[in-house]
Amino acid sequence: MGAIMRSDRAIITLMTDFGRADSYVAEVKGVILSSAPEAQIVDACHEIPFADSMAGAWVLSQYWSFYPAGTIHVAGVGNSRRNLLAEVDGHVFLAPDNGVLAFVLRDAKTSRVSALRGEVHRPGPVSSTFHGRDVLAWAAALLAKGDVKVSELSDPVERWISLELPLPQATSDGVVGSVVHVDRFGNLITNITRNMLEEGCPSLLHISMENTGRDATPLASEEAASGVAALPTTKSPSPMLRQCQDAPLAELGCTSYLIRAGSCEIVGLCTTYAEVPPGQPVALIGSSDRLEISMAGESAAVCLEIKRGDPVRIRKMGIPNTKYK
Amino acid sequence: MGAIMRSDRAIITLMTDFGRADSYVAEVKGVILSSAPEAQIVDACHEIPFADSMAGAWVLSQYWSFYPAGTIHVAGVGNSRRNLLAEVDGHVFLAPDNGVLAFVLRDAKTSRVSALRGEVHRPGPVSSTFHGRDVLAWAAALLAKGDVKVSELSDPVERWISLELPLPQATSDGVVGSVVHVDRFGNLITNITRNMLEEGCPSLLHISMENTGRDATPLASEEAASGVAALPTTKSPSPMLRQCQDAPLAELGCTSYLIRAGSCEIVGLCTTYAEVPPGQPVALIGSSDRLEISMAGESAAVCLEIKRGDPVRIRKMGIPNTKYK
Amino acid sequence: MGAIMRSDRAIITLMTDFGRADSYVAEVKGVILSSAPEAQIVDACHEIPFADSMAGAWVLSQYWSFYPAGTIHVAGVGNSRRNLLAEVDGHVFLAPDNGVLAFVLRDAKTSRVSALRGEVHRPGPVSSTFHGRDVLAWAAALLAKGDVKVSELSDPVERWISLELPLPQATSDGVVGSVVHVDRFGNLITNITRNMLEEGCPSLLHISMENTGRDATPLASEEAASGVAALPTTKSPSPMLRQCQDAPLAELGCTSYLIRAGSCEIVGLCTTYAEVPPGQPVALIGSSDRLEISMAGESAAVCLEIKRGDPVRIRKMGIPNTKYK
Repeated sequence: MGAIMRSDRAIITLMTDFGRADSYVAEVKGVILSSAPEAQIVDACHEIPFADSMAGAWVLSQYWSFYPAGTIHVAGVGNSRRNLLAEVDGHVFLAPDNGVLAFVLRDAKTSRVSALRGEVHRPGPVSSTFHGRDVLAWAAALLAKGDVKVSELSDPVERWISLELPLPQATSDGVVGSVVHVDRFGNLITNITRNMLEEGCPSLLHISMENTGRDATPLASEEAASGVAALPTTKSPSPMLRQCQDAPLAELGCTSYLIRAGSCEIVGLCTTYAEVPPGQPVALIGSSDRLEISMAGESAAVCLEIKRGDPVRIRKMGIPNTKYK
Repeated sequence: MGAIMRSDRAIITLMTDFGRADSYVAEVKGVILSSAPEAQIVDACHEIPFADSMAGAWVLSQYWSFYPAGTIHVAGVGNSRRNLLAEVDGHVFLAPDNGVLAFVLRDAKTSRVSALRGEVHRPGPVSSTFHGRDVLAWAAALLAKGDVKVSELSDPVERWISLELPLPQATSDGVVGSVVHVDRFGNLITNITRNMLEEGCPSLLHISMENTGRDATPLASEEAASGVAALPTTKSPSPMLRQCQDAPLAELGCTSYLIRAGSCEIVGLCTTYAEVPPGQPVALIGSSDRLEISMAGESAAVCLEIKRGDPVRIRKMGIPNTKYK
Repeated sequence: MGAIMRSDRAIITLMTDFGRADSYVAEVKGVILSSAPEAQIVDACHEIPFADSMAGAWVLSQYWSFYPAGTIHVAGVGNSRRNLLAEVDGHVFLAPDNGVLAFVLRDAKTSRVSALRGEVHRPGPVSSTFHGRDVLAWAAALLAKGDVKVSELSDPVERWISLELPLPQATSDGVVGSVVHVDRFGNLITNITRNMLEEGCPSLLHISMENTGRDATPLASEEAASGVAALPTTKSPSPMLRQCQDAPLAELGCTSYLIRAGSCEIVGLCTTYAEVPPGQPVALIGSSDRLEISMAGESAAVCLEIKRGDPVRIRKMGIPNTKYK
């Protein structure tokens, strides 16, 4: 730690489910600044739904790697009898042992997980409902000051609470994933990454060219692969079926994709939300480098009646471009 | 002041009723940073309901003492023709004279209250609707820079606006208090402190052992003490009556408590919100060291139809544990 | 830039339409702090309605000038293929070329507008939907570090996207303006400035004294000037017509004003929101030095059914005070 941490002004990010209407966030900041007045506290997000460790795990996984090595990330979402201290790729995480670190630990190149010792808490009584203030903030301040080593605060552990993280699956001609997050705009963010599409594309191309008769039941193979009952599919375009410009597809080596989520079918990937008229769904590779489904000016989650955990399928359509000929 | 204040990076906390959707908070921060660019501004809370000095007073009272001595706390909730500067236990408070400092001043060990002089405002016209920016932020910046003394900005006053702060009352076998705050989760936070229960407990124990016949009208004495009309009470457990583990009760020297608020009766104190099933009310000593009533996963305020100011009664039940035998 | 910027701790303000429930704001801050760990990031406002460049333009115009020269203002509202870097009166602005700088540039004493070069973005892929993180935050950090000059990041441009900014018009006896912003309290903030009233007043005074018969159709001239169809006006006071104390009118040299917006007529200007009973509309010169219409304890926008863009008329009434006799 000592080598990593900037001793002059440690950065501490705060993610909580406390909301912003009460004193809770201010109490946490006060505990930190009383011990480490030079710490640079960053409000990451305080609007995680109460005790929703999956939402917290997702949001945390999206921002932590943008911070410099040595940053201390406090993830005060939900509670647990045990609090974890995890060192991941040069960053430090403090969180209850309830799965909120699940995405971070799954994607870590290097990680070392330990449990905070029971005696690590601010002086005085410890509230059983507010470890974020009495334990996590206190530990963050100790580390920010640089006076203690991780090994003085915690003991290595081999097991911790994880989450059933939804994993996308490759199918014969595409990928079946699921919605992992609905953001405040109602955008549906999936666990299907750009890499999956790029890597899957050439072989998918080959398969799809040999299966020109598949269009009548375009998603049968995904249905089988994902174990989800196939919805009836008609050949006539649904009101939701739409085609937009395929700017990124050339980069991906394919001419077009068919995306299906709920009763909505989208043809093609766009590059920005604004490429389609209001009220039309759009699929794109979002800022997290994952497939997203959005609606210009509206909530895709509400309009399409799709929620976190629902399946999303994407498969290649049409003819290859010159890059792969 | 000079001795207390860290001259290098003064901490200024901001609590306002400005919300976060407009430019108001940013204007306040700009005024501070223009005069005191090294100040460390802390967003404490900007979601106090508009001009709700009671809510502001409560929230402020919960976080200020977690900050280091020398911190400057700006409480821009509501307005007043006069603005106060209060020195309390080494901290400085700037607020309109409308009661928002009521809890802080009531609980102060040492305090000195003064009124800002009329000439203390940022250069140029002073908005009559935005003293938070033109007066309080300006005064905070002057103090943060360390260039002026409190006595150069303000004159001592003997009287100021207070609030009718609800005070809990001891009864023959318990305490009658009231809800002082409803947080964003709908938790009902009362003014009954852990100390009141700990101190009251041994004697309550004695009384209750001599009054074994009281169960049919368990809250009669509290009703009388609080002047609130007694609600009809049946012996059969109401749907809201529930029993949960009594972990903290041993510490308190009692086996169990009966808590009553609105039409809800709760038997026993829990240690965390999660100890009861969703939809069930739970009573516990919350992070503010006060009695709280919550509902797992729901708003107790909404479900129980209880609001700020409503009475809450707690009394000891059952047999003493070995600690007091 | 080098001369203006405080090299030790540059201030970077952030205004976005990202909301606070997701990771987006935290990602932006991480990009900045990874490059410029000493930067002082200020959360200005993250609740601008999605892609509402008019709302963003207004809010930005209200706070930027309160910050010290050298401040870098990031305005991540909406998107654009091109991103602007504007130097205005010693401040630096980074924003998409979609009009969000319209008010700032219109009111600038000195300004120089340039477009960020395409190569200015953080290393790695640039998200087409998140320039706030990949371009604007990156450029802000480069400038905050002081390692680059503006001319190394951008090229001067002569044209950029503006907005149809509503401009108030002087009439024979007053001003016709419009609502430019509805704040979170429902206050209706107009584009009619205190200066317009002060400057217009003496001459208006003269005109109105010669037109004593105009009261039956008090707003006819404004209607004509603004091209808005005149609403039927009765002589009997509407339920909304009210009179309040005229404290600031003496300063303005007039005894009273008649303000009309929607179906609401207000007589006189107040100095604070609290001068009228709840449920009554009040007109005052607000903290932005502009005419505002509010309702004590309620949303004027909702109660009066007035929205952004709707016209507001103000004209002088009554007799001059001694100052102008």
